[in-house]
Amino acid sequence: MSVIYDRVALIGLGLIASSMYWAMKRDGLAGEVTGYARSEDTRNTAREIGLCDRVCDSIAEAVEGADLVVLCVPVGAMGAVAAEMAPHLKPGATVSDVGSVKVNVIETVGPHLPEGVHFVPAHPLAGTEHSGPRSGFPELFANRWLLIVPVEGSDRDAVDRLRSLWEAMGSNVAEMDAEHHDLVVAVTSHAPHLIAYTMVGVADDLRRVTDSEVIKYSAGGFRDFTRIAASDPTMWRDVFLTNKDATLEILGRFTEELFALQRAIRQGDGEHLHAYFTRTRAIRRGIIEAGQDTDAPDFGRAGGRKK
Amino acid sequence: MSVIYDRVALIGLGLIASSMYWAMKRDGLAGEVTGYARSEDTRNTAREIGLCDRVCDSIAEAVEGADLVVLCVPVGAMGAVAAEMAPHLKPGATVSDVGSVKVNVIETVGPHLPEGVHFVPAHPLAGTEHSGPRSGFPELFANRWLLIVPVEGSDRDAVDRLRSLWEAMGSNVAEMDAEHHDLVVAVTSHAPHLIAYTMVGVADDLRRVTDSEVIKYSAGGFRDFTRIAASDPTMWRDVFLTNKDATLEILGRFTEELFALQRAIRQGDGEHLHAYFTRTRAIRRGIIEAGQDTDAPDFGRAGGRKK
Repeated sequence: MSVIYDRVALIGLGLIASSMYWAMKRDGLAGEVTGYARSEDTRNTAREIGLCDRVCDSIAEAVEGADLVVLCVPVGAMGAVAAEMAPHLKPGATVSDVGSVKVNVIETVGPHLPEGVHFVPAHPLAGTEHSGPRSGFPELFANRWLLIVPVEGSDRDAVDRLRSLWEAMGSNVAEMDAEHHDLVVAVTSHAPHLIAYTMVGVADDLRRVTDSEVIKYSAGGFRDFTRIAASDPTMWRDVFLTNKDATLEILGRFTEELFALQRAIRQGDGEHLHAYFTRTRAIRRGIIEAGQDTDAPDFGRAGGRKK
Repeated sequence: MSVIYDRVALIGLGLIASSMYWAMKRDGLAGEVTGYARSEDTRNTAREIGLCDRVCDSIAEAVEGADLVVLCVPVGAMGAVAAEMAPHLKPGATVSDVGSVKVNVIETVGPHLPEGVHFVPAHPLAGTEHSGPRSGFPELFANRWLLIVPVEGSDRDAVDRLRSLWEAMGSNVAEMDAEHHDLVVAVTSHAPHLIAYTMVGVADDLRRVTDSEVIKYSAGGFRDFTRIAASDPTMWRDVFLTNKDATLEILGRFTEELFALQRAIRQGDGEHLHAYFTRTRAIRRGIIEAGQDTDAPDFGRAGGRKK
């Protein structure tokens, strides 16, 4: 493939930025890629493993001359980073981000950007429970969705160019507005994460069942929850604080439904339970057919096979 | 390895029974293994794929002469199956089961068993989201825990022999009493399943986000929940109806904790959230160190690698 941006700057060097770097380099999608991270440790690690063509010690240096700047920091840090980099942006540059929340990022980043810079917010629906500069790999975005959330007046050419970069990194791309984005991810990502964190926290805090029992006997279902509950605490704190309304709306619906199922259990209403548990199988089939998960038993962990 | 039981009867031919059969045959742990399933379709499938040395058309025929009878039917069906087989059991035989609930199974099965038959309830903490006679594989129990729940007067030799069978199939074995068992699995398996079913049901029933969006954008965390929410509806209906008290106790704790986190989100209490999300990481580490899950990112699904 050919170069899509001559100069790219990655601000924040965690799982997403490092995966972007390896994906761009694998396919020659960018000329020079600079990187910046606030932590000196992270910058040193990046230099050690060859993450980015040039690791810079300031945001100003990293964004200077960049055609594309991608903010890959926790959502709560985006506004401050935008303010700091704004005076150093090249006219005509595109600024994008990979934040899990869009209304808040648009509100906090947008006002800092100078005229003549194109703002194209985006969000890759991809990740693992690992974090930090060593956690990236170039296949992270393969067949995962990238949501672009154009803002009022987003330049069409700038949007299309960013789209072509993500497609070249393997993503499927869709566009939607910011409010709808925040509700969709509240359902498909934010509420599930909070619920998983909650379940793991409860198990960790029981008097009558020890942590050692919880750990040994986790293969009955619990261990699945611990994976997403091992995700980066700072990132997720910021997600919940900045996508408050949509997350609370979905959690309200969840609690309502959970109470209905608890009542069915208490009253011995087997029909209600059976019908509910049958309905939920269809979504799993849809996800497998859409190529968004594996059909291998137990995510393929068990080494299982079907005869 | 050598034969542990000359004659084994498997009643119910789903995931667990079929995995037991393949594991016993792989290592020559049983002489003849008979099998019975209530559904003719299941019996035909079993004959077609060579599941069991002899598939019988009645429970009486299957258990006749068996040294070990293992009940592998949904918990709610165990009592009726026990009543039906009781007159045909060989004196000195061991009756065991693989039910996910123990207090209820002991109460419903125990009274039917004649004097001179040894009852040794058990529960393998192993499974996948697949079910039925085609879903079994011999490695299912490797490094998974098998909990033996001896009843009053359980014969020590009978317990030890069953233990040696499960160890030979790859399990780690522990013993505990029935009440504690039911609470442990309420935390590590039953509550997580109900919560996963609930989350998937909520996502399936939103007006403002379509099913197609939920499916496409599921990789942000939601898809993990759909795996266990695709488990067998009959089995799980019975689990909740028969482990009512322990499940409701854990769900009560869960709801309490979820409300506390929702309040922290509403009030913008980032410190509370960050501390909670940091604490839950330790349990994940414990599970990986105990060999109960993989450390590969995303359960190894993503093909991810660490540099």
